[in-house]
Amino acid sequence: MSNNSMASFSAFDAEMMARALRLAERGLYLARPNPRVGCVITQNDQVVGEGYHQVFGQAHAEVNALKQAGSKASGGTAYVTLEPCAHQGKTGPCATALINAGVNRVVCAMRDPNPKVDGGGFAMLQEAGISVDSGLMAQQAADLNPGFIKRMQQQRPLVRLKMAISADGRTAMASGESQWITGPDARQDVQRLRARHDAIITGRGTLVNDNPSLNVRLDEWAEPLTEQQLAHFKQPVRVLIDRQAKANLTQQFFKLTSPIWWVGDKDYLDRLPPHIERKKVVGNGADFFNNLLKQCAAHQFNEVLIEAGSKLAGQFIQAGLVDELVLYIAPKLMGANAMPLAALPFDAMEQSVSMQLTDCRQVGDDLKLTYQLSN
Amino acid sequence: MSNNSMASFSAFDAEMMARALRLAERGLYLARPNPRVGCVITQNDQVVGEGYHQVFGQAHAEVNALKQAGSKASGGTAYVTLEPCAHQGKTGPCATALINAGVNRVVCAMRDPNPKVDGGGFAMLQEAGISVDSGLMAQQAADLNPGFIKRMQQQRPLVRLKMAISADGRTAMASGESQWITGPDARQDVQRLRARHDAIITGRGTLVNDNPSLNVRLDEWAEPLTEQQLAHFKQPVRVLIDRQAKANLTQQFFKLTSPIWWVGDKDYLDRLPPHIERKKVVGNGADFFNNLLKQCAAHQFNEVLIEAGSKLAGQFIQAGLVDELVLYIAPKLMGANAMPLAALPFDAMEQSVSMQLTDCRQVGDDLKLTYQLSN
Repeated sequence: MSNNSMASFSAFDAEMMARALRLAERGLYLARPNPRVGCVITQNDQVVGEGYHQVFGQAHAEVNALKQAGSKASGGTAYVTLEPCAHQGKTGPCATALINAGVNRVVCAMRDPNPKVDGGGFAMLQEAGISVDSGLMAQQAADLNPGFIKRMQQQRPLVRLKMAISADGRTAMASGESQWITGPDARQDVQRLRARHDAIITGRGTLVNDNPSLNVRLDEWAEPLTEQQLAHFKQPVRVLIDRQAKANLTQQFFKLTSPIWWVGDKDYLDRLPPHIERKKVVGNGADFFNNLLKQCAAHQFNEVLIEAGSKLAGQFIQAGLVDELVLYIAPKLMGANAMPLAALPFDAMEQSVSMQLTDCRQVGDDLKLTYQLSN
Repeated sequence: MSNNSMASFSAFDAEMMARALRLAERGLYLARPNPRVGCVITQNDQVVGEGYHQVFGQAHAEVNALKQAGSKASGGTAYVTLEPCAHQGKTGPCATALINAGVNRVVCAMRDPNPKVDGGGFAMLQEAGISVDSGLMAQQAADLNPGFIKRMQQQRPLVRLKMAISADGRTAMASGESQWITGPDARQDVQRLRARHDAIITGRGTLVNDNPSLNVRLDEWAEPLTEQQLAHFKQPVRVLIDRQAKANLTQQFFKLTSPIWWVGDKDYLDRLPPHIERKKVVGNGADFFNNLLKQCAAHQFNEVLIEAGSKLAGQFIQAGLVDELVLYIAPKLMGANAMPLAALPFDAMEQSVSMQLTDCRQVGDDLKLTYQLSN
């Protein structure tokens, strides 16, 4: 199998892979916890089929593309953003499907980090006499599935921390008053951000201060959703860290019946409503957060979002467990008495957390900044 | 005289005015305290001369453009970003120069808000039988000279507050440690920001914490400066607010011999070095800051920059005297013990300061945001 050296790929190969990457992106909300994957099939430099992994539990990208191509796949090339699977999961192995369809060549962006695949798909194809070229636009393919890759490689989900702040870095007044710092466009953008995550982690303080639901409100999206999106959307699991079990079941958060993990040390209620599950997480400090994330990964959570106050945000950052910080910055100054972004008790510049700005865009009157944290 | 209705201007007019605006911008650093003005002269839809106000005390834009056009100006059109002056200043009236050159038509972006001109230039031209059209790209022309216009209309300079902060809105550690929050590109950008200002206001705390010079270091600019820029550059006046006269003359700030205003209530030294001038400003609270800005305007300062700590920054903001906030945001988290952007003692969201984001750009690894404050 030839790998990465760009010289082995043509401009046409690049164009087709770019097309497959855009297709993969359509799986942003519904493929989880599977990876987002796209596939294009060509015959004599013409597209004869394309597809993506639309909904978890349903056909993979390759199968959808092969279905569209029909007999035209025979002797053709398949462009796929992730190595075709070699194992029997909820659907049959895609490598087998490609072999059966008679394709001549498979071009892949990246190897599948899933230990059940991890080169096994490539091997199956090559054993069947199919030419395999991998490494085309590997970084772009990886960017589609940062959480899936992290879970496969490190048994931990990708952790995003989202904060809405004023230009002077404040999340709430000293009284707790915080509605609304950012404008309606930013709040709608947060709905889309939530929708790509498998879980949303929060703390009891946020429940007390904001009384939020922390669900995805699909009916509030500006762009209309497809019937498929509406029918198959799975609400992220809402994870409440409440070690002393002091949260109040009458709050908005508990009324919605999408799943909740109640993470605490105490059994304070004999019988919880069926949508609320009690999770025991052992350890203290960074250990506790590490163990929580391990449980998340064991439940196939690829990407988890933290929406919490400065205390919990600071604890996750200090434990070195935040991969990405998403800041919505409102054009306001809230003043020095207001609540900080994160309770990080640093005394010297050398303690400060280094980040890298990876995205900046305007959302209504607010700015949305994305930073990668170097842990 | 016809004014504004866009219908009276052709695409060619617009193209020429855009060219004049770009020329005007070249006066950014050296025209002050005069306005930045550009001029293009055309004859039969061909450019025959162009110029801008290069250096305070030297020829105005119209004179430079007429000089280049020579006899070809006769019967031509002059495009100028600001109404030609009608009064004898350091140079003769530009309206007279245009009349003498025999131009047929003058197209202007905006009327001169200077009470010594204010329509007088237009009147002189029209009395001489020259057709005058004003209002083309008036906003763009005004954006070149926000401080000059403010000073002419309100007898106050435009006030910019510049802060270098972390992503969590912090300007220094609690110890005062703050070097370096932002990277070298942002610090160089600050040099260019300083260079367009007539004065830089600071407080004693900044001198104590940072020991800065607060001058423009022309030799550190990435892009080479012209000989003219180097020869004619006037350092901004450094204005130190030190009411108790506690600052220490051995600090870096005082060693540089570009002019300093020492603003305080006390005469604590019999004899100051010649570059340091003692300024008395009366009043307390907002009155004091208002009176300081009036003195700045009386000394023909169009734009003043505040580079200070959170206390002085907060006082200017609370007095409603900051027009523009320029934030350099470093990709760092400095934590909740660190110093705030501005000491604004707000308790409720409704007290927060509203702003409007007008510019966002990346400068090295940092972001530069510009906000207009609504006072």
